Amino acid sequence: MSQMPSLSQLQQPDAFLRRHLGPDEAEQRAMLEAMGLDSLDELIVQTVPPAIRLNRPLDLPAALDEQQALAKLRGYADQNQLWTSLIGMGYYGTITPTVILRNVLENPGWYTAYTPYQPEIAQGRLEALLNFQQLTIDLTGLDLASASLLDEATAAAEAMALAKRVAKSKSNLFFVDEDCHPQTISVVQTRAQAFGFDLVVDHVDNLAQHQVFGALLQYPDTHGEIRDLRPLIGHLHGQQAIACVGADLLSLLLLTPPGELGADVVFGSAQRFGVPMGYGGPHAAFFATRDDFKRAMPGRIIGVSKDARGNVALRMALQTREQHIRREKANSNICTAQVLLANIASFYAVYHGPEGLKRIAQRVHRLTAILAEGLARRGVQRDNQYYFDTLTLDVGGSQTAIIETAKAARVNLRILGRGKLGVSLDETCTTETVNQLFSIFLGADHGLSVDELDQAVLVPGIPAELSRSSGYLDHPVFNAHHSETEMLRYLKQLENKDLALNQAMIPLGSCTMKLNATSEMIPITWPEFANLHPFAPRAQALGYRLMIDELEAWLCAITGFDAICMQPNSGAQGEYAGLLAIRRYHESRGEGHRNICLIPASAHGTNPASAQMASMRVVIVECDQDGNVDLEDLKRKAEDAGGQLSCLMATYPSTHGVYEEGIREICEVIHSHGGQVYMDGANLNAQVGLARPADIGADVSHMNLHKTFCIPHGGGGPGMGPIGVRAHLAPFVANHPVIELKGPNPENGAVSAAPWGSASILPISWMYIAMMGPELADATEVAILNANYLARQLGDAYPVLYSGRNGRVAHECILDLRPLKAETGITEEDVAKRLMDYGFHAPTMSFPVPGTLMVEPTESENKHELDRFIEAMLSIRAEIAKVQAGDWPAEDNPLKRAPHTLADVIGHWERPYSIEEAVTPTGHTRAHKYWPTVNRVDNVYGDRNLFCACVPLEDYRE
Amino acid sequence: MSQMPSLSQLQQPDAFLRRHLGPDEAEQRAMLEAMGLDSLDELIVQTVPPAIRLNRPLDLPAALDEQQALAKLRGYADQNQLWTSLIGMGYYGTITPTVILRNVLENPGWYTAYTPYQPEIAQGRLEALLNFQQLTIDLTGLDLASASLLDEATAAAEAMALAKRVAKSKSNLFFVDEDCHPQTISVVQTRAQAFGFDLVVDHVDNLAQHQVFGALLQYPDTHGEIRDLRPLIGHLHGQQAIACVGADLLSLLLLTPPGELGADVVFGSAQRFGVPMGYGGPHAAFFATRDDFKRAMPGRIIGVSKDARGNVALRMALQTREQHIRREKANSNICTAQVLLANIASFYAVYHGPEGLKRIAQRVHRLTAILAEGLARRGVQRDNQYYFDTLTLDVGGSQTAIIETAKAARVNLRILGRGKLGVSLDETCTTETVNQLFSIFLGADHGLSVDELDQAVLVPGIPAELSRSSGYLDHPVFNAHHSETEMLRYLKQLENKDLALNQAMIPLGSCTMKLNATSEMIPITWPEFANLHPFAPRAQALGYRLMIDELEAWLCAITGFDAICMQPNSGAQGEYAGLLAIRRYHESRGEGHRNICLIPASAHGTNPASAQMASMRVVIVECDQDGNVDLEDLKRKAEDAGGQLSCLMATYPSTHGVYEEGIREICEVIHSHGGQVYMDGANLNAQVGLARPADIGADVSHMNLHKTFCIPHGGGGPGMGPIGVRAHLAPFVANHPVIELKGPNPENGAVSAAPWGSASILPISWMYIAMMGPELADATEVAILNANYLARQLGDAYPVLYSGRNGRVAHECILDLRPLKAETGITEEDVAKRLMDYGFHAPTMSFPVPGTLMVEPTESENKHELDRFIEAMLSIRAEIAKVQAGDWPAEDNPLKRAPHTLADVIGHWERPYSIEEAVTPTGHTRAHKYWPTVNRVDNVYGDRNLFCACVPLEDYRE
Repeated sequence: MSQMPSLSQLQQPDAFLRRHLGPDEAEQRAMLEAMGLDSLDELIVQTVPPAIRLNRPLDLPAALDEQQALAKLRGYADQNQLWTSLIGMGYYGTITPTVILRNVLENPGWYTAYTPYQPEIAQGRLEALLNFQQLTIDLTGLDLASASLLDEATAAAEAMALAKRVAKSKSNLFFVDEDCHPQTISVVQTRAQAFGFDLVVDHVDNLAQHQVFGALLQYPDTHGEIRDLRPLIGHLHGQQAIACVGADLLSLLLLTPPGELGADVVFGSAQRFGVPMGYGGPHAAFFATRDDFKRAMPGRIIGVSKDARGNVALRMALQTREQHIRREKANSNICTAQVLLANIASFYAVYHGPEGLKRIAQRVHRLTAILAEGLARRGVQRDNQYYFDTLTLDVGGSQTAIIETAKAARVNLRILGRGKLGVSLDETCTTETVNQLFSIFLGADHGLSVDELDQAVLVPGIPAELSRSSGYLDHPVFNAHHSETEMLRYLKQLENKDLALNQAMIPLGSCTMKLNATSEMIPITWPEFANLHPFAPRAQALGYRLMIDELEAWLCAITGFDAICMQPNSGAQGEYAGLLAIRRYHESRGEGHRNICLIPASAHGTNPASAQMASMRVVIVECDQDGNVDLEDLKRKAEDAGGQLSCLMATYPSTHGVYEEGIREICEVIHSHGGQVYMDGANLNAQVGLARPADIGADVSHMNLHKTFCIPHGGGGPGMGPIGVRAHLAPFVANHPVIELKGPNPENGAVSAAPWGSASILPISWMYIAMMGPELADATEVAILNANYLARQLGDAYPVLYSGRNGRVAHECILDLRPLKAETGITEEDVAKRLMDYGFHAPTMSFPVPGTLMVEPTESENKHELDRFIEAMLSIRAEIAKVQAGDWPAEDNPLKRAPHTLADVIGHWERPYSIEEAVTPTGHTRAHKYWPTVNRVDNVYGDRNLFCACVPLEDYRE
Repeated sequence: MSQMPSLSQLQQPDAFLRRHLGPDEAEQRAMLEAMGLDSLDELIVQTVPPAIRLNRPLDLPAALDEQQALAKLRGYADQNQLWTSLIGMGYYGTITPTVILRNVLENPGWYTAYTPYQPEIAQGRLEALLNFQQLTIDLTGLDLASASLLDEATAAAEAMALAKRVAKSKSNLFFVDEDCHPQTISVVQTRAQAFGFDLVVDHVDNLAQHQVFGALLQYPDTHGEIRDLRPLIGHLHGQQAIACVGADLLSLLLLTPPGELGADVVFGSAQRFGVPMGYGGPHAAFFATRDDFKRAMPGRIIGVSKDARGNVALRMALQTREQHIRREKANSNICTAQVLLANIASFYAVYHGPEGLKRIAQRVHRLTAILAEGLARRGVQRDNQYYFDTLTLDVGGSQTAIIETAKAARVNLRILGRGKLGVSLDETCTTETVNQLFSIFLGADHGLSVDELDQAVLVPGIPAELSRSSGYLDHPVFNAHHSETEMLRYLKQLENKDLALNQAMIPLGSCTMKLNATSEMIPITWPEFANLHPFAPRAQALGYRLMIDELEAWLCAITGFDAICMQPNSGAQGEYAGLLAIRRYHESRGEGHRNICLIPASAHGTNPASAQMASMRVVIVECDQDGNVDLEDLKRKAEDAGGQLSCLMATYPSTHGVYEEGIREICEVIHSHGGQVYMDGANLNAQVGLARPADIGADVSHMNLHKTFCIPHGGGGPGMGPIGVRAHLAPFVANHPVIELKGPNPENGAVSAAPWGSASILPISWMYIAMMGPELADATEVAILNANYLARQLGDAYPVLYSGRNGRVAHECILDLRPLKAETGITEEDVAKRLMDYGFHAPTMSFPVPGTLMVEPTESENKHELDRFIEAMLSIRAEIAKVQAGDWPAEDNPLKRAPHTLADVIGHWERPYSIEEAVTPTGHTRAHKYWPTVNRVDNVYGDRNLFCACVPLEDYRE
């Protein structure tokens, strides 16, 4: 019967592949035809060097459809057990207000946005980040805050590095309070070792015995104690050393802020401000310091500047600071932030306001005080005299029995040595929790009443002299949006200012803004993934283990590596972690002297910075005029390095968007000199299914799960940068001091706070691979098709700077604007800003080559959208021609004036071009206009007049 | 210790009340002060007549905070069991594409929108609805479709009513195929009885024996049979009767559409196009008919018109059709649609496209064919010769055993009488399902292989002569958005066109656009609520039962009624259901002759329409000049009616926004004549916690859960209109033919398709009440405060038409534009459209009094937003003054030209006012401009040139 095809002919109509790919078959055919090609295969053969081709399907299970994949992952999630975790140690139960959960964390308008490098189309998230900075400043009592770091432990390491940078003390010794969180100590140890700093971990009472360049203190400390830091800080300042304080954000609502106690750097985790624990992350770390040290500040800072009309405009400040320009002289490689999570934390503060936050802190503290009082009355010994939310109890011989009772009640306590137990309360705790704890510690017949204790006059948990007297969060933004309706509208107003993937393609070369599919995102807010404490017993995290094990196996199949280390929570962290593994490997073979790292001139700026952090000597290898590594120069420099050669760091395909033919030979050269090959995974998405880093010759590589494997950019983070290693390096990757990992040597330190980095976003990549299966290769091929189609369509208007075999580019291409600039004065920035008027986010600007735009369309954009972009770029080219021809003045034309805002239009219009030409240059913009909300931002003004806190409302008034 | 308040002082900082209310205490104080009042209580005492005051707290459990309420409801949800339901009968498993789930159903941009009465700020959802109509037209093969009806069964009743309206046959008899779904038959019976139509339910073979004005046929029928309808339709047309066909939307992808077979009306449910079963609803019913009958079409139709610039613009067509103007002569009271659900169904079609949909249908059909073949091979007898997805099997004595086996496998079959079982497959079924069914029907050793059967040549399930040959969905909208990226952007483009509650207040009098809190919305997409079949055994729906029972008890406590009937799925349905109960009550007492229904002149138009549908004679009671019911006229007309008096329908507070003092006396008058009081629940939100309908004297009242109890308007539906009744009416409310309800008499017919109406949205109201508890009264009081504040601030500029005691209004107020119109020619419509330029949705226009605006701010708007609205209204008043003064010409001013679009701005601007005055008249609009996407829509043109399908792309081109 003709109209009844068989089941095998009726493949699942909702198979994920065709949803992930932009162009369907007809569009692919049309694009191939436009390039004179018969098939996609023909293009791939022309483009990818045969020497590196993987000529078989990826060894992955067959693709599941969306429902099947969700059901399978649901099955894993159900194997995670949600106990009440009172472990503390930097991770606490918290309540994400549902209006924020749904309208930020689950909203593509927020999570698909890119890093706000183009501030005119990012004022919404920039404002949210500025709020985060204000929150940090107010609560820490310091002058200046950053827009977030990766986690509390790496923030501690950054604090140490900053201390080294700015301290007048010439000491090489850094002191660490032994009562810091263990993962913080471990990460700092790892970092100090890599940098070559001396480190002492000791009780703070012994601080005075050391001459140091800085010290790390914790407030309250990991066991809950609250110490007056003034004497310690006084001592440090006396020797011109820097005082770094890790602090608990919630406690600072009640405690005198460390800034007021004299601290120079204050950092910590903003997790408990509404960000789920997520089995370790992602969360935003906050980081504040004195104004004096602003140019030494790691990571990103949002600053207030003005736009071309003189109106307030926000943007990332100090973009030209050292780690961006010094490369191999940097002592931080941090180049990202945890924007999505920082924003959630800042919205949590906006939603609750100062009074609401204070009540939350008071309530947590009161519950703890009642618990303390009850236990004291029944004779349980407490180690810490003072406390905010954490008690360390000495239960002696009852320890095992108490732990068993707690287990029966599905409560996780912190298990310490020698008969000690820790308990930390949080926002989710109730009188019932305290009551339960009485039963756990004292037995069911404890005879205590929470209500009765609440009536009692309790011994203060916070020392009177450390009770906070200063105010906070008096800016209107924290005092105006407390009804849900107002909060919803505030979120929407900010969202409406920004251009994200849900509105237009974001063709950022090297950044891979592909689809972040809904089905990939759904599991991350399932409570079973969201609400696990990272140090919960592993038996409670079986679902995580199954998911992570499988993901690791899949990543091995995709890359050819033998093992994966999931800990690095950004790409740059991955680089650093990989170089450490190489270093440890050499050391294990008695070749610890190998410390030269070769890096091609075209490398990402993080490469030399990471090498620097691993105390390697960076030697730059030149590129030839085609943009490829100069093989002769490489050989020469490898030769020169000889027995000192540690490794090469190379990106493949190159940052020039080309499959270099010589990559295998390059790797062989390095290996022949006893070196290791670190492959920067930024462009891994151009290899998946077609080639494998390990097959090509890489020993270690990081994988940007937020690029290649669909974790959304979140407006500038989170990312995830796990590394793959060949077997010989596997023992040398990061381990963890709290949760020991199988595989790496036990003595290896941590590189991130949590054992598996930002575990709660791993389901995104798991879902992507599960739904794509071996057809991942199709994604790579279509990405190459899209890039070559763009290169072909735009090449006449804007020369494509580099290409590989048969004139093909890989998955991205560099358009050279320099000739036009020389002729007309129109710069790559003018084109980038002008694209906003056309409703596009600009391609990557001036990387890796100044004066160029690097375009990466990804496989998720269809021909329709590519053609729209081509139309815009060609239209802009025609506009440049008008400047060239003198039809428009060099400084008064739509390019120099771009982007255009409503303010332009409603004002007095006297320009040589029309309003229509300015704001609706295409049919699409007439139908679906996106409006940048500020005119071109003045970066120089902002950096000269650095202001990084919320703007007084008057400044917005005209 | 001063900084350690006790727990009792630290009430939950996230308690829901302060999130739900707009103004906080300080703002409330400021507003009271502006009115010269000392306290909110003082205002309430001044406003609410003491005679009706409930002077005690509502008898509700204490409010839970958001997390507690979610946890409690989660506990209920977990008591629903998700079996595989293959029951069919109009409800089928379906997959909501996650991109639609997250970005439409879970997105306040879609669900908080209002009905698109103001088309200039609703082009997004109007386009989605137009797509729904196109989908309906293409699949049914008819000329014209509506924008959805409430459910399949009420659509059948509407079809019957249409048939009566348009048939040339003078017969009073309507024929119903006995093989229609039982709930359809029941609702049609109820409706026919109310209307006084004769009805025969019989086998279609006996159709020829009757002279009818129309007939209801089903295709495929409830048992799965597919019959060639041409002979039956020919017979009907031969007697000038109307052929109404209920059809399965998915089957129409493979079957010759009923329109091509000659049907005059085709309707059915669009549920299986991606809308979860939701234990019965809400879903959208589709409804199509011939062009000839367009003016008899029930419900809403979206039509294409043009705007003031001549551009394509959509809007609701034929707004002035009979049910709007005829009131008591109407024969439908439908005045809403299921917009959110219709849009989901239309997006499902956009996402899958014609090929994808066809594959889904083919796959369902193929699985059914394999099942049929396997069962046939093993000798299981089948009743239906042909089938699409449903088999009716005669298993004789094995019935009980098979049912038991199915239970063990957690599969629900349809249990029919006499050894028969039904099974319906759907999109979620797999080969595994079929395999499981083989085991259930044949035992584990059935020896059949699905794969093998799939290779076999199978007997056709669809008769060759009914195999669809015509195409469908060739409009580009169904062929362009198949990648997830494109789909996401299409949804976003449409969303961006519309103004919803997430952007601004929508101060619609009588429509109560209050906060739809996120925590209220979250549970409805939990699978345990979303995926239950309405006819699943009740033991599987324990969670629903617990939730509904509790909600009923709470609604009783709030209203004072003794019982609740949850079945009516809109307010108008509630009215109709309530009047039927009154009618049955009178009949039960031998007073069936009581048929006069008194209705005040100020009533909602649905009141007389509902009365008409219950075959009551409507007698209008006049209002006095203060807008109150003229008590003398009432007494006179009650007297006149005497023993014929059935009931009064009254709204309280009145539709004039006033607490009438005489309401108790009014009720007493009615009761003294043996009549019943139906209280229209539209304004129940002004009573909650302050007064109770039953205490005042009402015998029955509906509750608009979508107004008072926070179900969002969804852009024009869903709604829910359960009724509360006093005990004497309780036996007379609706029952259900499939799931018998406890309470009402078993012989009572259904008014909606599902036993509890739109059950899956009840969690919204449950959450609201659970989180507010007795503090619901606070919401009412703040609503009154907000309304009186607005009335006070705007009263000088625009006279407030009616007020009650002490000059106070209730929860809304009517602003009289008539004097200004007389003086200046500026109409209420001009003001409404001009408000769009200010970023507001207009208040209710010309209801209940032509030439006025009725403003209802609700309790969820804070003072800031009210002040912004006041600023806009006063600014508009100043603009009117400029017209008045002759500064601006009568026809060329910002009011007459409103709303302004980008097209105005980019064109040639030569107007007596500036672009700035036009589009950014306030600071807020400069900072957060919302752009209407079309200029003022020409309604007359659209109705004269009725076009209700997707617009050819060329028409959009300039």
